[in-house]
Amino acid sequence: MSQEEKKNGLSRRQVLGTTAVAAAAGAAGVAGGVSLKDAGVITPAEAQTAPAAPAARPAASKYEVKPGELDEYYVFFSSGQTGEVRIMGLPSMREMMRVPVFNRDSATGWGQTNESRKILTEGLTPEAREFLADKGGIYLNGDLHHPHLSFTDGTYDGRYLFANDKANTRVCRIRLDVMKCDKIIQLPNQHSVHGLRVQKYPRTGYVFCNGEDRVPIPNDGKILDDPKQYSSIFTAVDGDTMKVAWQIRVDGNLDNVDADYQGKYAWATCYNSEEGVTLAEMMSKEQDWVVVFNLKRIEEAVKNGEFETIGGVPVLNGRHGSKLTRYIPVPNSPHGINTAPDGIHFVANGKLSPTVTVFDARKLDDLFDDKIQPRDVVVAEPELGLGPLHTAYDGKGNAYTTLFLDSQVVKWNIDLAKRAYKGEKVNPVIQKLDVHYQPGHNHSSMGQTKEADGKWLISLNKFSKDRYLNVGPLKPENDQLIDISGDRMVLVHDSPSFAEPHDATIVHRSKINPLHVWKRDDPFFADAVQQAKADGVDLMVDSKVVRDGNKVRVYMTSSAPAFGLESFQVKQGDEVTVYVTNIDDVEDLTHGFCVINYGVNMEVAPQATASVTFKADRPGVYWYFCTWFCHAMHMEMKGRMFVEPQAT
Amino acid sequence: MSQEEKKNGLSRRQVLGTTAVAAAAGAAGVAGGVSLKDAGVITPAEAQTAPAAPAARPAASKYEVKPGELDEYYVFFSSGQTGEVRIMGLPSMREMMRVPVFNRDSATGWGQTNESRKILTEGLTPEAREFLADKGGIYLNGDLHHPHLSFTDGTYDGRYLFANDKANTRVCRIRLDVMKCDKIIQLPNQHSVHGLRVQKYPRTGYVFCNGEDRVPIPNDGKILDDPKQYSSIFTAVDGDTMKVAWQIRVDGNLDNVDADYQGKYAWATCYNSEEGVTLAEMMSKEQDWVVVFNLKRIEEAVKNGEFETIGGVPVLNGRHGSKLTRYIPVPNSPHGINTAPDGIHFVANGKLSPTVTVFDARKLDDLFDDKIQPRDVVVAEPELGLGPLHTAYDGKGNAYTTLFLDSQVVKWNIDLAKRAYKGEKVNPVIQKLDVHYQPGHNHSSMGQTKEADGKWLISLNKFSKDRYLNVGPLKPENDQLIDISGDRMVLVHDSPSFAEPHDATIVHRSKINPLHVWKRDDPFFADAVQQAKADGVDLMVDSKVVRDGNKVRVYMTSSAPAFGLESFQVKQGDEVTVYVTNIDDVEDLTHGFCVINYGVNMEVAPQATASVTFKADRPGVYWYFCTWFCHAMHMEMKGRMFVEPQAT
Repeated sequence: MSQEEKKNGLSRRQVLGTTAVAAAAGAAGVAGGVSLKDAGVITPAEAQTAPAAPAARPAASKYEVKPGELDEYYVFFSSGQTGEVRIMGLPSMREMMRVPVFNRDSATGWGQTNESRKILTEGLTPEAREFLADKGGIYLNGDLHHPHLSFTDGTYDGRYLFANDKANTRVCRIRLDVMKCDKIIQLPNQHSVHGLRVQKYPRTGYVFCNGEDRVPIPNDGKILDDPKQYSSIFTAVDGDTMKVAWQIRVDGNLDNVDADYQGKYAWATCYNSEEGVTLAEMMSKEQDWVVVFNLKRIEEAVKNGEFETIGGVPVLNGRHGSKLTRYIPVPNSPHGINTAPDGIHFVANGKLSPTVTVFDARKLDDLFDDKIQPRDVVVAEPELGLGPLHTAYDGKGNAYTTLFLDSQVVKWNIDLAKRAYKGEKVNPVIQKLDVHYQPGHNHSSMGQTKEADGKWLISLNKFSKDRYLNVGPLKPENDQLIDISGDRMVLVHDSPSFAEPHDATIVHRSKINPLHVWKRDDPFFADAVQQAKADGVDLMVDSKVVRDGNKVRVYMTSSAPAFGLESFQVKQGDEVTVYVTNIDDVEDLTHGFCVINYGVNMEVAPQATASVTFKADRPGVYWYFCTWFCHAMHMEMKGRMFVEPQAT
Repeated sequence: MSQEEKKNGLSRRQVLGTTAVAAAAGAAGVAGGVSLKDAGVITPAEAQTAPAAPAARPAASKYEVKPGELDEYYVFFSSGQTGEVRIMGLPSMREMMRVPVFNRDSATGWGQTNESRKILTEGLTPEAREFLADKGGIYLNGDLHHPHLSFTDGTYDGRYLFANDKANTRVCRIRLDVMKCDKIIQLPNQHSVHGLRVQKYPRTGYVFCNGEDRVPIPNDGKILDDPKQYSSIFTAVDGDTMKVAWQIRVDGNLDNVDADYQGKYAWATCYNSEEGVTLAEMMSKEQDWVVVFNLKRIEEAVKNGEFETIGGVPVLNGRHGSKLTRYIPVPNSPHGINTAPDGIHFVANGKLSPTVTVFDARKLDDLFDDKIQPRDVVVAEPELGLGPLHTAYDGKGNAYTTLFLDSQVVKWNIDLAKRAYKGEKVNPVIQKLDVHYQPGHNHSSMGQTKEADGKWLISLNKFSKDRYLNVGPLKPENDQLIDISGDRMVLVHDSPSFAEPHDATIVHRSKINPLHVWKRDDPFFADAVQQAKADGVDLMVDSKVVRDGNKVRVYMTSSAPAFGLESFQVKQGDEVTVYVTNIDDVEDLTHGFCVINYGVNMEVAPQATASVTFKADRPGVYWYFCTWFCHAMHMEMKGRMFVEPQAT
């Protein structure tokens, strides 16, 4: 790249011919750490770049988690358009739990219980609430993209996980003590949320949410096909209150976002600087941006009232020329943006350019003070291959970038890239590994914290094609597990996944400490406790029916293998609320409550209360039964609801 | 057991002290078959009954499916209260696909697309349709228990999978060429479906559906708490038409069901011979039944009009004394019933008795002709351990029974059990293996067909407790993979699963041959094709908007990375139907269609058409985008829906 090209951030968009693997010979593959105790046998000869024939592969059994052994890491996987969060174990890549969030779940009653409906409805915008009024009151779909855990002092603190819904412009919070979603907010003004990351220092703090698509604000139909009047929004949500702290209008379409380790800046990739509305328009320029947000200046501007209030929240101006933002030119359509665990560098991934752009966060103060030019923050821009999308880190100075078009992960060295940028004749690329096929996000173990440990990498590949038995026209995606503990990357496992896993976060198990049974004073079911109290019911003891006009509240305990009520009677047309309290306090002893032919089912985990409200408008005898296996006599854990016919 | 006890089928309900493992010494563990080529190294010393310390376990890497290698078997897993079917690979135990059925799925739009809503609604009973009219028109939950494939001549023919919904009394059919549900029927008269199995010979044919709970027929509220007037129903569905062929009233609560290899009989376990409605009542007798259904006599009775028509279907009388059925006494509360691949034996599992009861199907003709007594069909009744629930077979004369209370799988020999029953001093029990914890169903590779191959067993355990990293109060269940190819069972893998997997079917990959892309004349989207034709639209070519009063039909192609329409305009209040046709014909190139903030999303696999109807009652600009990753420019695959505000 010429100095001129570096200044303007232009890419040559050429197919790379010069980045063939620079294989580092010598001792390799000696792994450290608990889960890799046996990995030392991997030799450079075994860990080839090109996929070896199965027989020549290293004995991957070294990576096995045997029956009864625990994984070393949790992986919190998003599920894309499935709308849930998945909790996997690593290195086994086994799915240990699904957490329903932006979807409707048949097993837990998510979207049906009163507890979940409160979470799904209380944060809706007034416009959405009105829109959904005749559609069951809640959204039944979502597109969950970026799951990120709360930080304290640059690493995970085990409190929360946050994630976005691209489909219906929402942000959720999952409590890591019970692994349930406890808050959902729909962002006003913003049209879809794409990138989401959190404040790493001093703590989370802010949840940063990229508004991807440009629309009129307000979007009430007065403006339609007039793109000049559209804009997109960057939102900071307060992770403690799950309210919008502030919003800021920007130019272009925001894509991905990340934050620094100093609590001063957030940065986002931004495509469609053309502000076009068709594919051709969006791709026409050679250059887009990384936008940097100055958190202190923004907080000050909010304090000084330098905002409009729209949709009930403060909206600031962060377009070109604002003191709150800086736009750094980078090659066309950058995609992922990733902060390195060194606390200094961050990388924007080229997508349509074969390069990634490396920035030095220490130069941002000068940029905001107009002492330097935007591109002066760039310290390297290595060419890596075709379609760089996301970059992960090992905490040892190396970076791992997915190449969508090349179907590879490239390992490269940040320091070498900086030296090359300064003109030295060094090749920053260390190894390229084929992945199968078309990788999007990748993630390394603890790699988004200051505690990056350089053991594992997962590559989330968008296509699986021939990697699994044929399951029909709809195929799984393919999440591949890669050992990065040695000098060379080694592919060790293919893991299929439904819909689009999209993104993931790998967290050491020492950071997570969930409960085994619910606490009775948990806010999750506090409304039920309060209603019971008003009805004079002790939920842990009493099973009784309270009639209140045509509203009937049915309270019952569940204790394997029996419900507190063997039957109850209501009248056709009653609004019935059933509260089930699981008084078993044994680990894993979950009950369920399902009414046959009434479309009612919910989960009640140990020591929890769950409730569901339905209209009893079918007369007759309806058995209810326990849906979560609890006992040898589980099948006999049932009772009858009598619905007395309306007098005709 | 005394002869008197044998005659009455009574159990001693005692804790077994005599069935300690009779370890067969000698050569063991020599595995055959493609996937087990390396398994020959397992020695008897390694394959202990008691769980060995991890270091002492056999090198389980022998079982590994390496990256890029294909599994040898498909496993079709039910998901219990999740309502879906899961397709796993075996031995890797990786989930390769989810097939939504009795649930609402955010990713595929199952329950939202017109194609899926037709399937979910067309088979509802009139009562359910009326009940659901003001609740969105469909059930959003289900409890899918028993997935079984269609047979021809005693083995799988690769056409269909059938499964039941215990929650809302439904039966589904999944097409194995496209791995999508194409038919759902709700059974009239019957209250819940529990056991489901299919006719094995000459072909499927019948799908047998056990009505578990007893209710009034019709269940219209005229009879409430009068259990004497309740009854339960056995249904045969025609698997080709997915209509009820006939129903038959029985005594007691039907539990599980299976069929013979001759096309003459079906048999079901039947608990609650007391016909009680509380746990204490249901358990009070020492004895329940296996009910045998004589298919030829039933078909003749239907032909002769010996039925009542209730709920639009023929209902026959199969209660005690009927020529259509026989009730064979067995110990209290039998659970699973499983036909052996020898075509001769079937086994009822004791649950509350430590025994299983073995029957000889060749004696049933005589039983129906009243030449012998019911218990004369019993040829063995070995004591196996506490809580026998289900039995699988290896095709070599051995059976594998889950012991719920003992948390074990017991391997025993049918012939030895018969000899013991005749008084010979032999112990039929070969080995007991600890499983973790509380197993329900189990299943062996091809074990429910005449082609049982004796390679693999999975044990579906109801509790995982400490087997995985803690994921909060709700734990996964634990499906364990066991190598049964040698003389001794060897536990090789723990596989967690969400909610209750409940049951599974292991099918050799040679039996399944799905399509990679849809055929354009597929009936799945024939309605869309017909509507397009009426509108003069060629779905593979045209993208256009057709207005029909306040109904608007929007036709568009999708071809990576663009929809056929970059925008379209409708009026607030319009009923909009969007038809998307994926004209890409590349394997794995699925598109999606999601409208932001409108709660709309659906899957469109290669060469398929999908459609969704919604009311455009929010004015403004709404971007739609592709939700199934398709291309480097996938994020730019989008367009705008303009909703013009209503004149006020």
